[in-house]
Amino acid sequence: MDTETQTLINGQHSKPNQGLNNAESGINFDATQFQPRVRDRHISYGSINGAVPLPENNRDPEMPGQQTVVFRRLPQGMLTTLSSQFESLDYELCENKIFKEEELKKNPCSLTKQNATRWVVVFFIGVCTALIACTIDICVVEMTKIKYGFLKKYIEKCVKENCLYIPYLQWLGISCGFAFLASVLVTYGEPVAAGSGIPLVKCYLNGINVHRLHRLKTLFVKAAGVTCSVLGGLAVGKEGPMVHSGAAVAAGLSQGKSTSLGFDFGILKEFRCDQEKRDFVTGGAAAGVAAAFGAPIGGVLFSLEEGSSFWNQNITWRIFFCSMVSAFTLNVVLSTYHGQLGMLAYDGLLNFGKFPDIPFALLELPIFISMGIIGGLAGALFNQLNYHISVFRRRFILSRWAKVLEVIIVCSVTVSIGFVMIYFVNDCKPLGAKDAVEFPIQMFCEDGQFNAVAAMWLQTPEASVRALFHDQPGTHNPLSVGMFFITYFFLSCWTYGLSISSGIFIPALLSGAAWGRLVGLGLYRITQGAAWADPGKYALIGAASQLGGIARVTLSLAVILIETTGNLSLGLGLMLTLLTAKLVGDCFNSGIYDMNVQLAGLPMLPWSSPPMCHGTQAQTIMSKPVVVLKEVERVSTVISVLEDTRHQGFPVIFEDRFSGSQAKQTSFGALRGLILRSQLKILLKEKPFCSSPTGSTRSPIPLETFRMYYPRYPAFEDIHFTEEERASYLDLRPYLNPTPYTVPKHASLHRTFQLFRALGLRHLIVTDDNNEVVGMITRKTLARYRARICCGAIDFVELPLGGHGVPL
Amino acid sequence: MDTETQTLINGQHSKPNQGLNNAESGINFDATQFQPRVRDRHISYGSINGAVPLPENNRDPEMPGQQTVVFRRLPQGMLTTLSSQFESLDYELCENKIFKEEELKKNPCSLTKQNATRWVVVFFIGVCTALIACTIDICVVEMTKIKYGFLKKYIEKCVKENCLYIPYLQWLGISCGFAFLASVLVTYGEPVAAGSGIPLVKCYLNGINVHRLHRLKTLFVKAAGVTCSVLGGLAVGKEGPMVHSGAAVAAGLSQGKSTSLGFDFGILKEFRCDQEKRDFVTGGAAAGVAAAFGAPIGGVLFSLEEGSSFWNQNITWRIFFCSMVSAFTLNVVLSTYHGQLGMLAYDGLLNFGKFPDIPFALLELPIFISMGIIGGLAGALFNQLNYHISVFRRRFILSRWAKVLEVIIVCSVTVSIGFVMIYFVNDCKPLGAKDAVEFPIQMFCEDGQFNAVAAMWLQTPEASVRALFHDQPGTHNPLSVGMFFITYFFLSCWTYGLSISSGIFIPALLSGAAWGRLVGLGLYRITQGAAWADPGKYALIGAASQLGGIARVTLSLAVILIETTGNLSLGLGLMLTLLTAKLVGDCFNSGIYDMNVQLAGLPMLPWSSPPMCHGTQAQTIMSKPVVVLKEVERVSTVISVLEDTRHQGFPVIFEDRFSGSQAKQTSFGALRGLILRSQLKILLKEKPFCSSPTGSTRSPIPLETFRMYYPRYPAFEDIHFTEEERASYLDLRPYLNPTPYTVPKHASLHRTFQLFRALGLRHLIVTDDNNEVVGMITRKTLARYRARICCGAIDFVELPLGGHGVPL
Repeated sequence: MDTETQTLINGQHSKPNQGLNNAESGINFDATQFQPRVRDRHISYGSINGAVPLPENNRDPEMPGQQTVVFRRLPQGMLTTLSSQFESLDYELCENKIFKEEELKKNPCSLTKQNATRWVVVFFIGVCTALIACTIDICVVEMTKIKYGFLKKYIEKCVKENCLYIPYLQWLGISCGFAFLASVLVTYGEPVAAGSGIPLVKCYLNGINVHRLHRLKTLFVKAAGVTCSVLGGLAVGKEGPMVHSGAAVAAGLSQGKSTSLGFDFGILKEFRCDQEKRDFVTGGAAAGVAAAFGAPIGGVLFSLEEGSSFWNQNITWRIFFCSMVSAFTLNVVLSTYHGQLGMLAYDGLLNFGKFPDIPFALLELPIFISMGIIGGLAGALFNQLNYHISVFRRRFILSRWAKVLEVIIVCSVTVSIGFVMIYFVNDCKPLGAKDAVEFPIQMFCEDGQFNAVAAMWLQTPEASVRALFHDQPGTHNPLSVGMFFITYFFLSCWTYGLSISSGIFIPALLSGAAWGRLVGLGLYRITQGAAWADPGKYALIGAASQLGGIARVTLSLAVILIETTGNLSLGLGLMLTLLTAKLVGDCFNSGIYDMNVQLAGLPMLPWSSPPMCHGTQAQTIMSKPVVVLKEVERVSTVISVLEDTRHQGFPVIFEDRFSGSQAKQTSFGALRGLILRSQLKILLKEKPFCSSPTGSTRSPIPLETFRMYYPRYPAFEDIHFTEEERASYLDLRPYLNPTPYTVPKHASLHRTFQLFRALGLRHLIVTDDNNEVVGMITRKTLARYRARICCGAIDFVELPLGGHGVPL
Repeated sequence: MDTETQTLINGQHSKPNQGLNNAESGINFDATQFQPRVRDRHISYGSINGAVPLPENNRDPEMPGQQTVVFRRLPQGMLTTLSSQFESLDYELCENKIFKEEELKKNPCSLTKQNATRWVVVFFIGVCTALIACTIDICVVEMTKIKYGFLKKYIEKCVKENCLYIPYLQWLGISCGFAFLASVLVTYGEPVAAGSGIPLVKCYLNGINVHRLHRLKTLFVKAAGVTCSVLGGLAVGKEGPMVHSGAAVAAGLSQGKSTSLGFDFGILKEFRCDQEKRDFVTGGAAAGVAAAFGAPIGGVLFSLEEGSSFWNQNITWRIFFCSMVSAFTLNVVLSTYHGQLGMLAYDGLLNFGKFPDIPFALLELPIFISMGIIGGLAGALFNQLNYHISVFRRRFILSRWAKVLEVIIVCSVTVSIGFVMIYFVNDCKPLGAKDAVEFPIQMFCEDGQFNAVAAMWLQTPEASVRALFHDQPGTHNPLSVGMFFITYFFLSCWTYGLSISSGIFIPALLSGAAWGRLVGLGLYRITQGAAWADPGKYALIGAASQLGGIARVTLSLAVILIETTGNLSLGLGLMLTLLTAKLVGDCFNSGIYDMNVQLAGLPMLPWSSPPMCHGTQAQTIMSKPVVVLKEVERVSTVISVLEDTRHQGFPVIFEDRFSGSQAKQTSFGALRGLILRSQLKILLKEKPFCSSPTGSTRSPIPLETFRMYYPRYPAFEDIHFTEEERASYLDLRPYLNPTPYTVPKHASLHRTFQLFRALGLRHLIVTDDNNEVVGMITRKTLARYRARICCGAIDFVELPLGGHGVPL
């Protein structure tokens, strides 16, 4: 795997891994370098008082005595290293000659057709995403029925016959079997399918090329894996992975071909570029949320708030359409499945049940705010614990079998805790309540009663959330709910990050609903059953607060919860709680998704430049020396440049000044354009060589050919050259991007960042006053400079580049 | 008023007006040049076949035989002229020396404080916007009661005494009085307060400096004007203007000073720049919608979908908070006003009444789609008619008194039609229905009955919408609803664009609800009263469809309607209808807001570049010659440049090549930076002159001083200079932006547009290969190139610049 970085400044670069499958072997972790994030929170920012001497090139010669902010170099550690193995996507159009020639063939009619095609593609993305969601849902529902029906039978039988170890072992066996399957699928099948996939999709939309993210195999592993995880009874949800599935469907459908299956429909060729694909993936992610929660508006907002890094009014409507189609399809299929053909009665995978209209009074606002604070604190604690667990995993659980083993251990512990709680907590409730439990288990209760704790454990987490939202005030014993909360909180924290497909939405909502219901029960008791103190309402607020504290999403989560509960009157209350939870949580650490991104060392670029970076100049941070090519270059030179470097883009210059000593050089020639490694590879494969150094007269290779290779370019090693070919020339002029974006070397880091981020660039060439190339800035250059705002202290850090970086 | 355009290429420039107050005097309309938009729809795009000879500089010398898309020059007409009187805002930071010096004084603590301050400001924006909305609402409700109570008394009396002309004259008198007031306020007070203000806010957020848009006076005229308009019984709503009010509140509060009132709190100085102000205004617009409809999520989405041109995840949460605070405040105040202190029972200005849960079946989808098509067609017709009326107004209704007179005529016609309908249509319904009418008028009905037509006219349009949504199926006679729809449709079309503050939301919803109810009544009759054929449901779908067809908003409108009716089950149906209406309407013309923007010639930049513009180069469209300044320039030169040109920005060069003949010059010197007219004006006012041409040694004027003048810079005419001062020098180096964004002259229009639009630039300098200035690109340069997609045909046009352009 290659890197765009022209030179790794810090020299710490270790050999990158050969793929994600064996990425773990690349982990070269030095325990002495490890510094937990909390420790370096308050060190920092020493230069304001001028105490820190500045490197010479950081000073503006025209401003004597100028003091610039120094970005503190962080030691290599878990949250403080940027992986060098991730490449960027090209969101910038390469407007070369062959592109312009193709562009001239377009006419208004073809443009209209292209636009209409986009809507058609988006329609199918919505439909397919919903169908996948339905399949997962129906599988889970049907197989859960079988599993818990079977267990119920044996438990009932063994309570009488005093052989409870048998159903325990059965439960353990079934669950561990599914968990094993889930884990093997991911660990040995497609490691990139682990987790919820939301952080990876977010990174993809930010412009990072996460390998194998959208493969057909990944989609299959994700869908099958999450089904198994849920059936294994682990503390996971199936909603997060739907986002990844939707994104994968979008990336696949929009290309009109499948490289995995090796066929090409020959359609949708115009969408085979990173930018078009990105817009479809944004829609797919929204469709995933829409299908998961039956929340089309929530889907669009989630894509906007959490997923997307580039937004455009024109795609809003398409994304909205995609979400809507997805929600519709799901509704129709599930309605049909539940025997209501032609009705639209099933809103989503996760219908939390309609809430009645419960108004709330002004007096409740302090309660909501307090619950927001609790949720924020609990979420921050969850993230911090999960961070430490993840660090532990990255250090010690490296081999595949260890990962599978860990999953089985977690599964066993989950089942055992559940069984112990069912056995010891005797929380008996009368049968036949309005919201009937699916598998009421009597255990040691009297006839006509059932064990409420068993009901919590022996059903899907979704059903437990629904129960906590809607059960009558007397249904749950505060002690058992409290115990359930504590165990489930820690279990879900341990579970998230395992080598299985799993979402964090439902576990967070469930533990939040548990403590929220406790608050509600308390208020109900204090007010002696006042109408407003409805425990179900507080369970909803608690669930929102907990998830808000963990994931730090506000707007979209409020809409999703409104859409899944069908209740608008609580809207303002939910929003207030969610904003509070986010603000409180942000004081301690970042959201779980961002934390995952940082842990994996993914070079994600935030929305705005780090503050106070106006004094840092482009020439300070740029990579140099720059490897450049001439407009008509000798083939042997091109080959050796590709062999010797790992750079992804090469500035093309007018005059060759490359012969001198590189180290002392300050300028590398007058800029004529930029050519990408992928283009050079295709050119070497297609061999449009010429014998004269003045250039070729043959007609250039059409854009069609370049598009044919997208997105998997020919392996350089497979191409062989004759001596004659090596001695001939390659005319780069028809293929190079003649007007790449540049930045003057005196430009500030802020300005450079703005340009790079707003336009979604991959390479930014730094030029001097004479428009000569002096350096190169890539995603990794910029992502290394980061500001961390934490408890009012700002930390300016420069992250070292490292070779490790396992996907999430 | 000045312009950034360095040179008006087409030479058609007419003297701009001296302000908006007397803008009408500047209209220099040539009837022969007028071409309605429909006529030139299919002419165009002649160059694909190479038939049109290209100007020499449009050809790429390296691509022989290259054919470039030619942008057809349009004749000056109503929708085809770009006004030259609008300036741009500066969304780019000027990172000059004095800025960097100030930046160094900042520390993490001050940054945290600044961030917290933003939240506090946003809180107050939400509160104030809601308070204004409450005031308007309460005024309207109370005075409507008085007005219609009074009329009812006289009508009842005169029906018996056969003197109906008396209440007619009273109604006419009262309504025309209010309408006169509304019109005089706007026409003589603040013309920029006319209309809904949404198009202007949209333009402001796009980066156009619309003068007087956010003044305190404008806010007052807007609020008082819309109250009078509604009281005048005109076919207007008070919701659209709330967006403008919110924006004005945000722009005012965020600056910590009022230039109108002449005081400065000395706080919030760090927010006195265009970029910060823009973010607050985005929040204010959202708060306006939230307050108008009680729809906090709808507010955020409206701001996102329709208002904003720049989006950033970081501001999402602040905008959401602002919306939420606004909805909360409104709810609390209105609850208190209605005697329910401490409850949160009033969701918004426009509570359409809670809809019961009406599910819908798959079979209804074709009906919804058909209604979407009808709405799209009706909306397109509305826009087209309104366009012709607006053109007529701009040609013939120029003087202020004529504008006022037109308002009075429209008001008289409205009242007369209402009276005639009440008199002739005898639609009697029994009194005492569940949703009681506020002013039941018996007219010629029997005792115990009331005239249903009178009930429609003798109440606010909001109440009529509510009635159409919720009345029992038998309440309305199809004939009277149909007549009401036809008259109201044309009346509202005539009314929109009058010189009063008025919104289009409610009139559109009302006429849509009318025809929607007709559809519902038809279905109810056909199905003989099936449960799903609820006329109220179809009235809601019709209302959405009509407004969607006119304004072409989908996502936010769906959310607003869901939030105001409290009904989620119709969500998918609403979305489907709205998307259909938008797609159908877009086949014929653009939305009413965009049409208004085009009519006013506002240089708004769309989200993406015109298609097929890759062959057009920056050097073809750039303005030249460029007026440049030296780094240390003679004061007299600066004065004469400011006097002789109207440019807003001047590139600063290293070497003076300005002495030669301008016309033949191709390069104007090596670029060193960019200085703005506003900066030069302040410098001339502050006079930091030096006697030596090598530069000043004095410490430069601090940024504080520059900020003090923002946003109204010293009038150049008021500054006087001695001979000695004129002979001295001005050192521009500490003030100039040293690294302005540049674009190479060979860059395509697409690339230039991307850079300009994504970064919100005001000036883009075109450079040659040696980094020397060769031209200048501004907003107006780019806004002139436009693609119009209409019925599958794409029209590439180059708009001429004109001097007219009255605000909407």
